[in-house]
Amino acid sequence: MPNETQTRAVRTIERCRELARITDVPGETTRLFLSEATRDAHALLLAWMAGAGLETRTDDAGNVRGLRLGAMPNGPTLLFFSHIDTVPNAGAFDGPLGVLLALTVIEELATTPLPFDIELIAFSEEEGARFSFPFLSSLAVTGQLTEEHLAKQDAAGVSVKQALRNFGLHPERIAETCALPAQTFAALEVHIEQGPVLEAEDMSLAVVESIVGQSRFLLTFTGHANHAGTTPMALRKDALAATAQWIAEVERYALDHKQLVATVGHVEVLPGAANVVPGLVRATLDVRHPSDASRHAATAVLLTKAEAAGELRGVRVKAEIKMQQNAVPMDHALTTQLADAAERAGFPINSMFSGAGHDAMILAPHVPTTMLFLRSPNGLSHHPDETVREQDVEAAIATVLEFVTGLRPPQ
Amino acid sequence: MPNETQTRAVRTIERCRELARITDVPGETTRLFLSEATRDAHALLLAWMAGAGLETRTDDAGNVRGLRLGAMPNGPTLLFFSHIDTVPNAGAFDGPLGVLLALTVIEELATTPLPFDIELIAFSEEEGARFSFPFLSSLAVTGQLTEEHLAKQDAAGVSVKQALRNFGLHPERIAETCALPAQTFAALEVHIEQGPVLEAEDMSLAVVESIVGQSRFLLTFTGHANHAGTTPMALRKDALAATAQWIAEVERYALDHKQLVATVGHVEVLPGAANVVPGLVRATLDVRHPSDASRHAATAVLLTKAEAAGELRGVRVKAEIKMQQNAVPMDHALTTQLADAAERAGFPINSMFSGAGHDAMILAPHVPTTMLFLRSPNGLSHHPDETVREQDVEAAIATVLEFVTGLRPPQ
Repeated sequence: MPNETQTRAVRTIERCRELARITDVPGETTRLFLSEATRDAHALLLAWMAGAGLETRTDDAGNVRGLRLGAMPNGPTLLFFSHIDTVPNAGAFDGPLGVLLALTVIEELATTPLPFDIELIAFSEEEGARFSFPFLSSLAVTGQLTEEHLAKQDAAGVSVKQALRNFGLHPERIAETCALPAQTFAALEVHIEQGPVLEAEDMSLAVVESIVGQSRFLLTFTGHANHAGTTPMALRKDALAATAQWIAEVERYALDHKQLVATVGHVEVLPGAANVVPGLVRATLDVRHPSDASRHAATAVLLTKAEAAGELRGVRVKAEIKMQQNAVPMDHALTTQLADAAERAGFPINSMFSGAGHDAMILAPHVPTTMLFLRSPNGLSHHPDETVREQDVEAAIATVLEFVTGLRPPQ
Repeated sequence: MPNETQTRAVRTIERCRELARITDVPGETTRLFLSEATRDAHALLLAWMAGAGLETRTDDAGNVRGLRLGAMPNGPTLLFFSHIDTVPNAGAFDGPLGVLLALTVIEELATTPLPFDIELIAFSEEEGARFSFPFLSSLAVTGQLTEEHLAKQDAAGVSVKQALRNFGLHPERIAETCALPAQTFAALEVHIEQGPVLEAEDMSLAVVESIVGQSRFLLTFTGHANHAGTTPMALRKDALAATAQWIAEVERYALDHKQLVATVGHVEVLPGAANVVPGLVRATLDVRHPSDASRHAATAVLLTKAEAAGELRGVRVKAEIKMQQNAVPMDHALTTQLADAAERAGFPINSMFSGAGHDAMILAPHVPTTMLFLRSPNGLSHHPDETVREQDVEAAIATVLEFVTGLRPPQ
């Protein structure tokens, strides 16, 4: 039950920190999908939900769900969601904040009659840390979890299906127990930004207009390994020099194009000896943009630049596409209502793009979905020092309360 | 004994190939210092030397030595040398060619009286492959092998001293049995170029004017790792982008400065994930130039460029020096005589710098030393496909014969 001497923001933050102490690895916060520690996390969360008057259950994908019934039987439903699994050695807020901030909002609304149900879902899996693929829960609740997904194995060789059974769940009932409420008319995920934009703008919150599309490539630059002492500069085919010119061009191009981010995050150099001219380099390229057309155009330019940098040096360049994901717009009307609610609550707000993937991206094609971002101090996430500011949490609670009380479900 | 139906060049090449079949690793040529296969290599070499009329012995550093006495007792000595150890999976010519070409020359001179002794030394260790430090033999014959060297261990934990003993040698007698002949007035190493210069110039041979100096650094670029999706370009501290700009500048600068070579041979990127902006990069820098002053000047400019590339992006740059080796000039008079001999033999010849280290570099401060380079087809060395052209070997034999017969020892 709420401690009356705490503000609602502090209560929300304290709960995130309490949940973060439930971990598979002592001394850090590591809570992988359906791990041992997850049982304790579920118990705590179910108790909090029950304390807030919700009807609780765990579905067969391991999602913890709490339902507040509205005025009408089988009425429309507002959905709150985020995830409670973590990356290894995580912070306390990436995921849990969205769940526990929604719980606070539900508590604040205790005596407020609403013309719709509210379901709060704490997704069991979003990060992809245990089975090397993300969004398991949101795929399950949108009917997209396949037998192929269920057969995937973790590092210990345990399949998703077996992990569900080991946890006491029934994978064969996923379709039945996981589906979203049929009359879901709005879905909201509150999440930390995981980037430095709001901090740079000195803003507490932003609404998310869309989740950017993403292309990922592996480029191979093949030159010729040569002795670093005996091979004059003009007679080299230096794969790393070609790659380096290109990486600098990737950075320049992205700096010159608004909303584009392009990253070379990994480079492998062969043979990789101080006294050998590099003969082969593999480099990753990650390109993101809210417009798919702009992303494709940028990608084409950047791959052409790689070929040109190679050609100057007799270095062959091959590019393999590793991932291609279109941008996912949030529901425009809902996002506008969320921005208006922030305004009414006294928090001027901008819209932004999410450069990271979120469950909202999986739900958006199925139910009207939007997201609210909170400032990430120092842009930190996936790190023990990840945090939130109390004032930003208060702003988010006030905004979501305004949003919920202003919502009018379709007739 | 020489096969009379072979040309002397073919005989030389065939012997290199025969020696290359003596290996510790079947199917390749791998003959590390004092390995098992080295016993067979010694036996073959000693037999060839004896067949050429040389007084043979193995000194206590494992060097195989053959002596042809001249007219005078304790007279002046001309030294031929190169090495017979190899890198793993080597070719047949890097080292052995210098030994076996000298043997051919000695055979060709069988009936020619000379006013000096000739000693041919096949150095047991040059590559540094077994004990991770090179030039063991040339250090031994110039009295520079220390107890510290002798204590160094191979991958199996065997020390140099123990390896010598296991081979039946007496490390405590190294000073006594390894020393160069007191009256050594000229020393010549014939070696493959190990680079593409002679091939690019369509030349068979070059005399070596000096062995370039070398500086080696490890640079650390420290930026900040960030999410590749959520961190706008302008808010990044991308350690790899800084490194990349710098690598391209290193290449440009070296291309613009004659005789300079500068190489970034290895780059390590952390955390090294496709979707994370690199936070830390370690990169090697190898700079070589025949002039020590020019090398130091170039090094200073290149390190400043690294700092500038970092500063643009809020990336800190640290440079540690890992190796510093001054250029070693060959004996000028001897090198001129070698070039003149090539001219007389009918082979126009240029002088060049050696970008790689050689035993000649260790001997040069102690005895007048020079080197003759043969063209390396495709610039290849340290590779099973390393080869030589018969016409180039003939040119070298003819040149060295002219050189030897034209030599006048000091009175």
